[in-house]
Amino acid sequence: MVTIRYIVVTVLVTPRIRLFKVQNVNSKGESNSYMYCTIISNGSLSRLKRLNELSHEIKINVSQALTEDIGSGDLTALLVPDDQHLSAIIECREEAVLCGVAWFNSCFQTLCSATEINWFVQDGDSIQAEQKLCEVRGNARVLLSAERSALNFLQMLSAVATHTKRFVEAVAGTNAAIVDTRKTIPGLRFAQKYAVQCGGGVNHRLGLYDGILIKENHILAAGGISPVLKKSRQIASSDVFVQIEVESLAELEAALNAGATMVLLDNFTLDQLREAVTMTRKRLNGGVIIEASGNISLQNVRQVAETGVDRISIGSLTKNIRAIDLSMRF
Amino acid sequence: MVTIRYIVVTVLVTPRIRLFKVQNVNSKGESNSYMYCTIISNGSLSRLKRLNELSHEIKINVSQALTEDIGSGDLTALLVPDDQHLSAIIECREEAVLCGVAWFNSCFQTLCSATEINWFVQDGDSIQAEQKLCEVRGNARVLLSAERSALNFLQMLSAVATHTKRFVEAVAGTNAAIVDTRKTIPGLRFAQKYAVQCGGGVNHRLGLYDGILIKENHILAAGGISPVLKKSRQIASSDVFVQIEVESLAELEAALNAGATMVLLDNFTLDQLREAVTMTRKRLNGGVIIEASGNISLQNVRQVAETGVDRISIGSLTKNIRAIDLSMRF
Repeated sequence: MVTIRYIVVTVLVTPRIRLFKVQNVNSKGESNSYMYCTIISNGSLSRLKRLNELSHEIKINVSQALTEDIGSGDLTALLVPDDQHLSAIIECREEAVLCGVAWFNSCFQTLCSATEINWFVQDGDSIQAEQKLCEVRGNARVLLSAERSALNFLQMLSAVATHTKRFVEAVAGTNAAIVDTRKTIPGLRFAQKYAVQCGGGVNHRLGLYDGILIKENHILAAGGISPVLKKSRQIASSDVFVQIEVESLAELEAALNAGATMVLLDNFTLDQLREAVTMTRKRLNGGVIIEASGNISLQNVRQVAETGVDRISIGSLTKNIRAIDLSMRF
Repeated sequence: MVTIRYIVVTVLVTPRIRLFKVQNVNSKGESNSYMYCTIISNGSLSRLKRLNELSHEIKINVSQALTEDIGSGDLTALLVPDDQHLSAIIECREEAVLCGVAWFNSCFQTLCSATEINWFVQDGDSIQAEQKLCEVRGNARVLLSAERSALNFLQMLSAVATHTKRFVEAVAGTNAAIVDTRKTIPGLRFAQKYAVQCGGGVNHRLGLYDGILIKENHILAAGGISPVLKKSRQIASSDVFVQIEVESLAELEAALNAGATMVLLDNFTLDQLREAVTMTRKRLNGGVIIEASGNISLQNVRQVAETGVDRISIGSLTKNIRAIDLSMRF
């Protein structure tokens, strides 16, 4: 059995960025070290609520995108005089839900804060094919150098919002919320969770730090459903939810008997979901939150919603991307 | 007309990371500042060739993914004893091309370097549904905390490799290479370009710094095709290619007359492509590189390849993701 000790050294602190050096030493005496950056948001990571809470994440996302694309410099932009001025229109070539205005703006305005961007729509708006989204005016080199990075954010985040909106519309009129997962594109967790909101979806936990989701291994390790729920309530502060995943009606019964207040029904059939809802609504005056997950598509999501579950979580909202077709016309 | 002056201050230098503060001041006196990180690779950014050149990028990608997922700590993992040992098998539920072994390994081994991972396949291998990919053994908390981040990399990068491979197979037997673009997921440029290689594709320029691609705006600004090509050759060092995008046979003729050695035929019809190939092969003893792009799908890529072009660039390789279905079974 190996135990691990972590030594964390803060290497750099700015008002916005902390750079840590982490050294871990296991009980065999083997050590390993690495560095990581984190972004300070009111002193701690907190639940994603509004775009203005994301400003630090946006800055990091954009700096990384510009750095990997521009690197030591945009060679082709040198063909354009450094004092030339340009204006351009962003058009969408298909129906979509817009998301990513702040990331798009930041790409241009990080290179030159004087770049003017006038939006005719905003995040969360439904847009039509051939619709003009915004006008960008500024230094020609800045516009040419930032164009691809800005569009890469907009086409990807709008893809997530659009995909989410299709699920939200498919369950319209039921009580079920469409919920995301941790199956996200690495490095873009916050951005994608924000895009899910723009599409009308609801965020599940942001990460492993702001919610407890008990699965099979945790149940086995703690010695059963009742002890694992008891231990979870000891660990969780008042703002942390405790959810338990069950794979059968018998497991659900055991979880409810042990006082579960939030259950995840994984890969249940429609009949099992209906029975689970009936069984669960009798408890806590109907206050137990019921979530369904597993192999849910646009084809079957309405049937799942009509079983009466409260939430439906769907990995494809954030793990599958079909980029929205955008163009920047000078 | 606004000109911009950049002031770059290096805030931090480690053997692997440089943190810069950039202040730009435009000619109106307005200033703006931001910070960005870059990763040192032999002192400069260089063309992507082999996986071992990516080790720094992998470390940054993984640190970011673990930080956004684990944050202040994995609450649920606290339900498992800190000295428990687990082993798990990664299985693929569908046919795919594998990519992302190093990112996957790094997620576990960043948390604990003693984690053992035995792979039965490697990057670039074709895998079948239900195939076992690897076995992971180590501390239970480490396995549970790194699982999602590791799978997020593997499912996304394997998606890119698999999608690329389908295009490569569709043009098998022709002379056309399948080439990527800069339409990538922000923050994952290098990782996705590596995945394209694993699928049998060829990388176009990595960013704006290692190739010149002349488009309409650059031609207009420089006063025509001949002056823009002349100026490009002055800017480009010997290891930087100069490619010019043309939108008609007349523009192609002008580019060839001005000595172009690499042309991008954007949105040409099949007939136009055939004529362009015939016209171009007469020049430079057939040494001009001909690339086609624009609205190329799995349905029409073979017809495009059979026109005789050398390269076909496709944005969807990296901008559209259909995550490969993987599971980790304990």
